[in-house]
Amino acid sequence: MTTNNVEKPYVLGMDIGGTNTVFGVVDSRGNVLASDSVKTQQYEQIDEYVEAICKKLVPMIAQFGGADKIKGMGVGAPNGNYYNGTIEFAPNLPWKGVIPLASIFEERLGIPTALTNDANAAAIGEMTYGAARGMKDFIMITLGTGVGSGIVINGQLVYGHDGFAGELGHVIVDRTGRPCGCGRKGCLETYCSATGVARTAREFLVQRTDPSLLRNIPAEEIQSKDVYDAAVKGDKLALDIFEFTGRILGEACVNFIAFSSPEAIIFFGGLAKSGDYLMKPIQKAIDENILKIYAGKTKLLLSQLKDADAAVLGASALGWEVKPEQ
Amino acid sequence: MTTNNVEKPYVLGMDIGGTNTVFGVVDSRGNVLASDSVKTQQYEQIDEYVEAICKKLVPMIAQFGGADKIKGMGVGAPNGNYYNGTIEFAPNLPWKGVIPLASIFEERLGIPTALTNDANAAAIGEMTYGAARGMKDFIMITLGTGVGSGIVINGQLVYGHDGFAGELGHVIVDRTGRPCGCGRKGCLETYCSATGVARTAREFLVQRTDPSLLRNIPAEEIQSKDVYDAAVKGDKLALDIFEFTGRILGEACVNFIAFSSPEAIIFFGGLAKSGDYLMKPIQKAIDENILKIYAGKTKLLLSQLKDADAAVLGASALGWEVKPEQ
Repeated sequence: MTTNNVEKPYVLGMDIGGTNTVFGVVDSRGNVLASDSVKTQQYEQIDEYVEAICKKLVPMIAQFGGADKIKGMGVGAPNGNYYNGTIEFAPNLPWKGVIPLASIFEERLGIPTALTNDANAAAIGEMTYGAARGMKDFIMITLGTGVGSGIVINGQLVYGHDGFAGELGHVIVDRTGRPCGCGRKGCLETYCSATGVARTAREFLVQRTDPSLLRNIPAEEIQSKDVYDAAVKGDKLALDIFEFTGRILGEACVNFIAFSSPEAIIFFGGLAKSGDYLMKPIQKAIDENILKIYAGKTKLLLSQLKDADAAVLGASALGWEVKPEQ
Repeated sequence: MTTNNVEKPYVLGMDIGGTNTVFGVVDSRGNVLASDSVKTQQYEQIDEYVEAICKKLVPMIAQFGGADKIKGMGVGAPNGNYYNGTIEFAPNLPWKGVIPLASIFEERLGIPTALTNDANAAAIGEMTYGAARGMKDFIMITLGTGVGSGIVINGQLVYGHDGFAGELGHVIVDRTGRPCGCGRKGCLETYCSATGVARTAREFLVQRTDPSLLRNIPAEEIQSKDVYDAAVKGDKLALDIFEFTGRILGEACVNFIAFSSPEAIIFFGGLAKSGDYLMKPIQKAIDENILKIYAGKTKLLLSQLKDADAAVLGASALGWEVKPEQ
C-alpha cells in the first residue's frame, strides 16, 4: 500500500467536515505536499460545492503532473458509504438525501475515487502512516464533537453488509441515560465526546457544591477544553469529570474487546489530546472490568497522525487502495 | 470451500464438549457419513483421551480409504485457540493448562488439523452448510449452557489478535447485574443462556405471586425446557420469562449491529429451539432500539444445521480450510 508507485506516485485526500472541507496531495511516505480548503456550509447545491473544490484542486493536480500521476482519491465524509461511494442523509451537511460524491469526482477529475466515513478514513490513515502500522486488528475511536469509530479486522476495514458498520459512538451504555441526537438514550457519545464532557461539567456543577475553576465560566459556554485547562491546574471537579468520562469509555472498551480482541484501541480527535487525564481512567476501568482471557493484552494508544494533516492524510490513504474500475 | 475435492473428498469433524466428544467423516455436501463418540470426562490424561478417540477414529478413516482421502480435520472445543491449535485453560474439561491438541492429532493421524472454539466452529458450519451460505457478514450466537458466539466479517471468522475474539456471552449488559462464572457481574450469558432462563424463572417465582405451571416443579430443578413447555401451554409467567430474556438479548444485539452491521444474526443451541417465544421479543427489542441507519436491515435467523449432526458438521467445515503446513 505504501510501496513506491513510480508511474502514479501521488494520491489525493479529502476530508469533508461540517465546517471545512480540506483536500491535498500526498506522497507514498505520507507527506502532505499541498493542501487547501473550502467552507462546506457555503454551498447549498452539491454542484456549486464540487465546482468550488475543483477550482482549487485541478490546478493543484496540474502542479504535480496531472491526473496521470495520481493513483486515486480518498474521501472521508460523515455518513459516507464505502460500497456505493455515496454520502447518505448526513445531518450536518447542506445536501440532503443520497449524494453519489465518489462518482461525481471521478467524472469531473478522471481519477478513481473511494469514499468512506471520516472515522474509517482515520483508521486507514493510522494503519498506513500512524500508530497502527503493521497491525491487523485494531479499533480507532475518534473523540470529537461526536464519537466515531473505524474497526480493522484481519487487516481490513469493517464495513458490514451495508457499508455502515462501526458506529461505536452509538453503542448504548446506559439505557436510561442522556438523550442522544440519534433519538435514543444513553449512547456512548452522549458521555464521551467533547460535547458529552461539557454536558458532564454542567451536571457536576449543579449536583456538587465544591469550588471549581469551571464556576468562573457561564455554564452554557463551558467546553471540553475548559475542563482540560482546569484539570491541568489540579481542579478536583475537572479531574472528576475525566474520571467519570474515562470510566464510561473504558467500560465500553471492555465490550469492544470481547467482540474483536484488538491488538490496540487508538484514540484520535480533540478530546484525545487530554492525554493521561483521560487515558488513565480508561485503562483503570478496562483493568477492573476485563474478561480474564483478554487481561493486559490490548494496548491503549493515541493517534500518531500529525494534527494539521491528519484529516487529509487519513482520507488519502484510501486513495492507494481504490480500484480504477470502481 | 464446498467444491468437490476429487483427490481428498472427505473431512473429519470433532466436537469436544464437557460431556461428550463426537467425531465423524463428512463429505463436501455436508453429509455426515459416519460418526462416533467418547465420554470426555472419562479420561484424566490427554494421552488416554486421544488414544480412546483414535481407537474408534482410525478404523473409521480406513473405511473411507485412509488418511490420503481426508483433506483435513476441524476440531471445535471450549477455549480453543485457532492460531495455536491449542485448548487453553478450559474450565469444564479434565485437562488443565494449555493442550496442543491440533498438533497431537496431526502427528497421530497424519491429517492436517485446525482447532477453534465451538461457537466459531458452528459459525463456519452455518456458512458452509447452513443458513449463512453466501453470507459474508453475520454473527452466530449459541444459546446453550452458556452463550457463545462466532463472528464472520468479510467472509472470514474473526479471531482477533490473540485468537480469542468473539466472547459475546461475556459482554456486560448490566454492570450491577447477576454474578457470572467469569468473576464479573451482568454478563449476557447470566440472562440469555439456558441456565440464565432457569435463573430468571426462579427469580420470577419468588418476586411474583401469580399462579404458574412452573410452581409444580421444585425451584432448584427448573430447566429452560420446563419454561418452554409451560409457555407452549400459555403460562403467563413462562411467557414473561421469554419476554424478559428476549428483550435483554435484543438490546445486546442492537450494540452488536452497531459494531459489524451483519446481514444476519443466527441463533443456535438448545434455547434457540424455543423459536418464536424467544425470537419475537428479540425482534421487538431490536426494532425499538436500533439506530436508524440499521433499521430493518439485519435478519434474525435460526440455525439450519441438522440437530444431531450440527456439532460434527460445524467442526468439519474447518477441515476444508486447514493448510497442510500448519
